[in-house]
Amino acid sequence: MTAHFETSSVTTSHNRPLRGLVGDIGGTNARFAIAERIDGKTTLADFKSLETADHKDCYAALAAYFTLIGGRPDLDYAVVAVAGPVKDGRIKFTNLDWEVREDLLARAVGVRKARLINDYAGLAFALPHLADSDTKTIGPVSKGFGNVHAVMGAGTGFGASVLVGGEFGPYCLSTESGHISFAPVNDYESEILRFLRKKHGRVTVEMLLSGPGLVNLYQAISSIRGEFAENLTPAQITHLEGEDATGSRYTVEAFLDIMASVCGDLALAHGATAGMFIAGGVAPRLIKHIDELRFRARMEAKAPLSAMVAAIPSSIIIHPYAALLGSANALTDIQITA
Amino acid sequence: MTAHFETSSVTTSHNRPLRGLVGDIGGTNARFAIAERIDGKTTLADFKSLETADHKDCYAALAAYFTLIGGRPDLDYAVVAVAGPVKDGRIKFTNLDWEVREDLLARAVGVRKARLINDYAGLAFALPHLADSDTKTIGPVSKGFGNVHAVMGAGTGFGASVLVGGEFGPYCLSTESGHISFAPVNDYESEILRFLRKKHGRVTVEMLLSGPGLVNLYQAISSIRGEFAENLTPAQITHLEGEDATGSRYTVEAFLDIMASVCGDLALAHGATAGMFIAGGVAPRLIKHIDELRFRARMEAKAPLSAMVAAIPSSIIIHPYAALLGSANALTDIQITA
Repeated sequence: MTAHFETSSVTTSHNRPLRGLVGDIGGTNARFAIAERIDGKTTLADFKSLETADHKDCYAALAAYFTLIGGRPDLDYAVVAVAGPVKDGRIKFTNLDWEVREDLLARAVGVRKARLINDYAGLAFALPHLADSDTKTIGPVSKGFGNVHAVMGAGTGFGASVLVGGEFGPYCLSTESGHISFAPVNDYESEILRFLRKKHGRVTVEMLLSGPGLVNLYQAISSIRGEFAENLTPAQITHLEGEDATGSRYTVEAFLDIMASVCGDLALAHGATAGMFIAGGVAPRLIKHIDELRFRARMEAKAPLSAMVAAIPSSIIIHPYAALLGSANALTDIQITA
Repeated sequence: MTAHFETSSVTTSHNRPLRGLVGDIGGTNARFAIAERIDGKTTLADFKSLETADHKDCYAALAAYFTLIGGRPDLDYAVVAVAGPVKDGRIKFTNLDWEVREDLLARAVGVRKARLINDYAGLAFALPHLADSDTKTIGPVSKGFGNVHAVMGAGTGFGASVLVGGEFGPYCLSTESGHISFAPVNDYESEILRFLRKKHGRVTVEMLLSGPGLVNLYQAISSIRGEFAENLTPAQITHLEGEDATGSRYTVEAFLDIMASVCGDLALAHGATAGMFIAGGVAPRLIKHIDELRFRARMEAKAPLSAMVAAIPSSIIIHPYAALLGSANALTDIQITA
């Protein structure tokens, strides 16, 4: 439990323990664990990461997982977070030859109730269960207002979702906020937009705030500065001491400025007065480069609502398996036992 | 009931009639009516519009209202929508010397349960109860996917909220999406942004999509076109045959293009796959100028998610008292009778 949340907003308190198979499947890895929920506390055990390429489908990977942990335990539910859209209880991965269906997942795990959720829904459901040590707060605000939080993050793409607590919660609103149009807030960013629009047509938030977005930004900024753009990967850019240290530094500064700006806009668009969380693969790699005052100044530059946004906390999630923790809490007791 | 919604997503079906005082208070007018809900149908009766200036406070206006309709009837609940933020069960209007409190409202109406909601929450709660004749659909799509709808609108300001249906609903997520930064999608709109940024600093969606936004747009476009900007009001601009007919026409075209663009972005950011509704005072005045193909083309220009947005219906609300209809349905049966 964490200081981010009022106890009353966490409605998954339990009388008897509920145990579930939880998973988080991306293109390369399938991570599984056994979750146990009791009295509002969630523990994860038997964590294993399998390579998707080693298994013909998700169900074969699950069988291998159960073998690894000494046999399939008695379970109450299964929730698996997946990197992609879930429709009608199934997902067909784009970059992986697997299709997963809730009914077959339930059978493979031996439970009545199985659910597939988007990975950013998994992160949203984790929010009430993150301890203070699972996050790095940016800025001085530690407690917001109301019971709506949101999580956003830059990784392979840009994800965002909203968690509603209180009497209606936990409810996750899945969004596609990474695909809204990029809003430049100064002439420099307008130049970046102009460069990328010429090259790509439409410019979205995701085209800047993601791994590929780092490369887009680096190329735009090099062009604006009249410098030659090297052929750098996202990892080389965030390393900051590579072949083009100066260009990398400008890129990371612009990336963090834009991330802060988007964080403020999504706090407004998602009504997330209780707090903004930042997930995804990129932010933890940049934590040491974040100037907290500069980040908050950009996030809060939302006149005429600056005071409102200034009261909203912002944190980076550093918990390594937050989507698993969220998957463990995506279903309420009643949904599991009904 | 309407074709926009599955019956299953409307959870306010009733066994016994529930009657409520409903209201919609802006700076100039306070509108009241008596709502009756039975078997999921809502009827409004005894509608009256009072001028706020004629009454020292909301409770005096309510007393006058009850006198006008022949005495205060027996009521189960009261819900009043207000143009402004509700905090801790009260609103202090900025442009009106009234403060309204839920406890005093309950006493004035003679009910146990009274609630103040934001006017865009009132509109959101109306969505499942709008008949086809209460809306004007823009484009060919009449039915979306899932159970999340959103409403946005340009009036004095720009409002937006989200309605979640299904097993969790009706739940309204209030947002401040009018205050996110403006995202220009072509060089012309980048020039508009540049002009307004020089003048105002930050440029938000509301600074374009509102009554004052029409004036901002007109001034920016006149400057870009090298024309003299007259001193026109929003009503003069939307009339299109005023002193500067050409400038007005360019302004209205840009306004509608930007509204369509924002409609697509908010469909994404609000996860509103079931449908986008447009409310507010400006859109109904512009209906006759809307080129549906052009509007939908701008709304759907959301690559790589164009196909997803193309499947989302868009409608303008023409029901004259939609916020009252929504106020009538903002509380569930259980919330009223518990």
